[in-house]
Amino acid sequence: MPVLLPPERAPTLHELLAAANTAGLDTEIVGTPQAGPVHIRGLGSLSGAGPTEISFLANPRLHEQLGTCRAAAVIMAADAYRELSATGRTPAYRVVLCSQPYLMYALLAQWFDRHRLAGLPAGIHPSAVIDPTARLGREVSVGPHCVIEAGACIGDGSRLGPACIIGAGSVLGKDCLLHARVTLYHGVTVGDRAILHSGVVLGADGFGFAPDPRLSSGAWAKIAQIGGVRAGDDVEIGANTTVDRGAIEDTVIGDGVKLDNQIMVAHNVTIGEHTAMAACVGIAGSTQIGRRCTIGGASMISGHLVLGDDIHVSGGTAITSNISRPGRYTGVYPYDSHAQWQRNAAVVSQLAQLRKRVRALERPESDTSE
Amino acid sequence: MPVLLPPERAPTLHELLAAANTAGLDTEIVGTPQAGPVHIRGLGSLSGAGPTEISFLANPRLHEQLGTCRAAAVIMAADAYRELSATGRTPAYRVVLCSQPYLMYALLAQWFDRHRLAGLPAGIHPSAVIDPTARLGREVSVGPHCVIEAGACIGDGSRLGPACIIGAGSVLGKDCLLHARVTLYHGVTVGDRAILHSGVVLGADGFGFAPDPRLSSGAWAKIAQIGGVRAGDDVEIGANTTVDRGAIEDTVIGDGVKLDNQIMVAHNVTIGEHTAMAACVGIAGSTQIGRRCTIGGASMISGHLVLGDDIHVSGGTAITSNISRPGRYTGVYPYDSHAQWQRNAAVVSQLAQLRKRVRALERPESDTSE
Amino acid sequence: MPVLLPPERAPTLHELLAAANTAGLDTEIVGTPQAGPVHIRGLGSLSGAGPTEISFLANPRLHEQLGTCRAAAVIMAADAYRELSATGRTPAYRVVLCSQPYLMYALLAQWFDRHRLAGLPAGIHPSAVIDPTARLGREVSVGPHCVIEAGACIGDGSRLGPACIIGAGSVLGKDCLLHARVTLYHGVTVGDRAILHSGVVLGADGFGFAPDPRLSSGAWAKIAQIGGVRAGDDVEIGANTTVDRGAIEDTVIGDGVKLDNQIMVAHNVTIGEHTAMAACVGIAGSTQIGRRCTIGGASMISGHLVLGDDIHVSGGTAITSNISRPGRYTGVYPYDSHAQWQRNAAVVSQLAQLRKRVRALERPESDTSE
Repeated sequence: MPVLLPPERAPTLHELLAAANTAGLDTEIVGTPQAGPVHIRGLGSLSGAGPTEISFLANPRLHEQLGTCRAAAVIMAADAYRELSATGRTPAYRVVLCSQPYLMYALLAQWFDRHRLAGLPAGIHPSAVIDPTARLGREVSVGPHCVIEAGACIGDGSRLGPACIIGAGSVLGKDCLLHARVTLYHGVTVGDRAILHSGVVLGADGFGFAPDPRLSSGAWAKIAQIGGVRAGDDVEIGANTTVDRGAIEDTVIGDGVKLDNQIMVAHNVTIGEHTAMAACVGIAGSTQIGRRCTIGGASMISGHLVLGDDIHVSGGTAITSNISRPGRYTGVYPYDSHAQWQRNAAVVSQLAQLRKRVRALERPESDTSE
Repeated sequence: MPVLLPPERAPTLHELLAAANTAGLDTEIVGTPQAGPVHIRGLGSLSGAGPTEISFLANPRLHEQLGTCRAAAVIMAADAYRELSATGRTPAYRVVLCSQPYLMYALLAQWFDRHRLAGLPAGIHPSAVIDPTARLGREVSVGPHCVIEAGACIGDGSRLGPACIIGAGSVLGKDCLLHARVTLYHGVTVGDRAILHSGVVLGADGFGFAPDPRLSSGAWAKIAQIGGVRAGDDVEIGANTTVDRGAIEDTVIGDGVKLDNQIMVAHNVTIGEHTAMAACVGIAGSTQIGRRCTIGGASMISGHLVLGDDIHVSGGTAITSNISRPGRYTGVYPYDSHAQWQRNAAVVSQLAQLRKRVRALERPESDTSE
Repeated sequence: MPVLLPPERAPTLHELLAAANTAGLDTEIVGTPQAGPVHIRGLGSLSGAGPTEISFLANPRLHEQLGTCRAAAVIMAADAYRELSATGRTPAYRVVLCSQPYLMYALLAQWFDRHRLAGLPAGIHPSAVIDPTARLGREVSVGPHCVIEAGACIGDGSRLGPACIIGAGSVLGKDCLLHARVTLYHGVTVGDRAILHSGVVLGADGFGFAPDPRLSSGAWAKIAQIGGVRAGDDVEIGANTTVDRGAIEDTVIGDGVKLDNQIMVAHNVTIGEHTAMAACVGIAGSTQIGRRCTIGGASMISGHLVLGDDIHVSGGTAITSNISRPGRYTGVYPYDSHAQWQRNAAVVSQLAQLRKRVRALERPESDTSE
């Protein structure tokens, strides 16, 4: 459950809206509930928020929950408020009108989470092992059991949770947040404001081998991976995701890219700005992915491909060729009851033959092969 | 290879059956091998067990291995023993009759493994970093390089392997076993008797972003994930599996749930009691999975779905819609030789057209589109 | 970007070719560029290499880049050199003729990477926790925050990066390289010259449970996994890959096997010599995979199967039955625009019926079911 701020540190609704990063967003507080300023201790869902929390309506299907919501305040768009008012019932909560309630919710959640972060221990924990040649900026926090190797560089205001490892010569930008147990190999560069989750590994060797006929039959010679990884600003990378270093040149993650958990980015892949990928995606080596793409969970993208900007791949899809035209692409085998699947799958393995039979029916005079 | 107990600590067959958690199971020792009690130093397969080990027959296809098994004792069901006896050959090993030989084997394996666990170092290792506000129960073991943050709580008898991290305010129940390098973020709750394997990450941020038109084209605003993770009793979670924290409310893992390795459970998923999932499964956000389900390896389940109780999903299947009826569901593309696959796959991309052609053949008078 | 050696430590071209492991490979330096020996500070691509780096041509499609390459030297095969010479332009770089330019590149990259490795800190870091009963060979390096448990054994010349954990009784061969944060459970054996990447977990419990009717409905009894993991010589295992321990007998990884990132190898799998698997592959329990196989990324292989030698599985394929004949096997659903996919996928779920309709057209006199 979300933690509630202690009452003495809870902002009023006005203070909260002013403190959150809402510049440029329209907000108006309406409704006439009980007198006196209300203090907001946390943020909850329409059904879960208690009388000291703020909630929001972003999904129209939840509109009916407005009637029973116990929150202190609810963010909603003007039309939702009109619909609510039309019922004639006056809600007990304040209403915050905003044309983008979902974004407003995101900003308030950020504010509450920053409050939690501010309570974390700061400074360099004595159990951290930091090479004397490493350079740490101002207000850098380094958690217990971290290791920062020779020549590494950590930007101002960055925070490393417990047991993070920054390899030799790697560079981390300003105001980054590394949760516990993030691993950067040597020669990895990450921009400002990155958020890296536990188990992330940046810069492991790409998978490169060459047959070596001087060795026993079938044996492989390793192709040492001497490139690096270069990630831009405002990147977020989810738990246990791995981005391999390039073979010779770098693997590149563009500004604003968001990668979910357990994603695999192979060597020399490039990912364009603001592309977002859901969990369990695998991208094979040297593939280039454009800007503002979204890649659904558990998709795989073959190697040496080029995907343009604004490509949207459905979850579970295997992309095996270049795509230049923006749009949505899908390739998922439809599931069914097992018995029904068995019946249909048997035909999948005979489709070419089935088409031939249809052609023979269409041209009964000449039974030519297709 | 399984480690053998030293002879002086090996129990007799009777002692072993009494010590293992076999109450309620029928067992009877039959056969008349050489005189004197036999000491059981370990547990092996029918083909691998040596003369100081116990083995079992659970798979009827292995029945013929009974003839050459060198074990000191073999667990089997009565009918298997009858079949063996009918051959007229008297085995040199003791026979333990049990109507559930596979469960009996499971319990004996547990006993041998507990013996190994009992030999592990106990107590708090001096290199562990434990916040003074953390609360540790009685007989808690904390391995080297662990980190236990402020307000965390570890129940009686729980054991943490090396380099585990328990985030601020997280709660671990009694008699849990955390292998090396388990990470709990803040605000994570785990019940009693959990077994968590290396690389597990509970409570990383769910993948939530909102478009922010105030930023550059396509940029995303982070939705801070302020919910938690709540796991029940008797949960086991495999190596490198990740369970993300909820956006606002918790992600929930029910009592007795068993998750294999490299599974991804997204934010606000709920998994019902005793559901088991094989490795590499991905479950997208807010999906609800019922009780006693089994999910085959490498399956993916889309977000915002509801799967009822007793649903069984075959490995490699993509579930993309709600399922309420118990049963087995499958959706795997049948593999073939590459050449044959190419021929058939070409038709997959023209199936709608093929069906149209069939319809035209069926209704030659009117070639209407389908 | 690849790091360049400082000029004073850069070898001449002759020294480099002599120092790299090129015995048995034909090499000849041709071309007549500016006088004096050239010192090679690094290795770059044809388009990226600067005037103190060596490059190579292995992909014929890059031949035209030879004209603009700024490298100090370029490795190429004789026919590529002939084609280049035929243009009449004399390149400014030295040409290293070699019949296997890709292998030669691999060997030079290894040389440069060994140079980097030689600069890493050696010895036993004081923060490492090493059980007094563990045995370390000569010239073993152990990084900060490593844990080596009772009875573990590390071979001569092996290097452990930061935060590696070697479980009780586990054995690591000679000249192994463990990057940061590798976890070996107890009872794991790894041969010589292994390379294990960050987040690798060897020896977590296999996924084994038996129904226990004495417990509440649907509850599972754990089958303790008392086998181990045995990996051969010259194995490389990628980041966050997991290999589970066997239930009773060992999980086995053959000599020269190369596993990419985020692969899941379940209990009692055996993988034959020199088999290579790309990332995100999942192999279910007890499956046997032969020698010299290649398994494409994101493939899954069901349990209890036998795949012979020299089997090649395309990426994204689900193998669900035994394969004995060498060759390439594929089973990927073809992707399409979402709208087109929807139209075709609807027919996939009716294929058995469609085949029946075709049969009815073929035999109009008798509309028998198929």
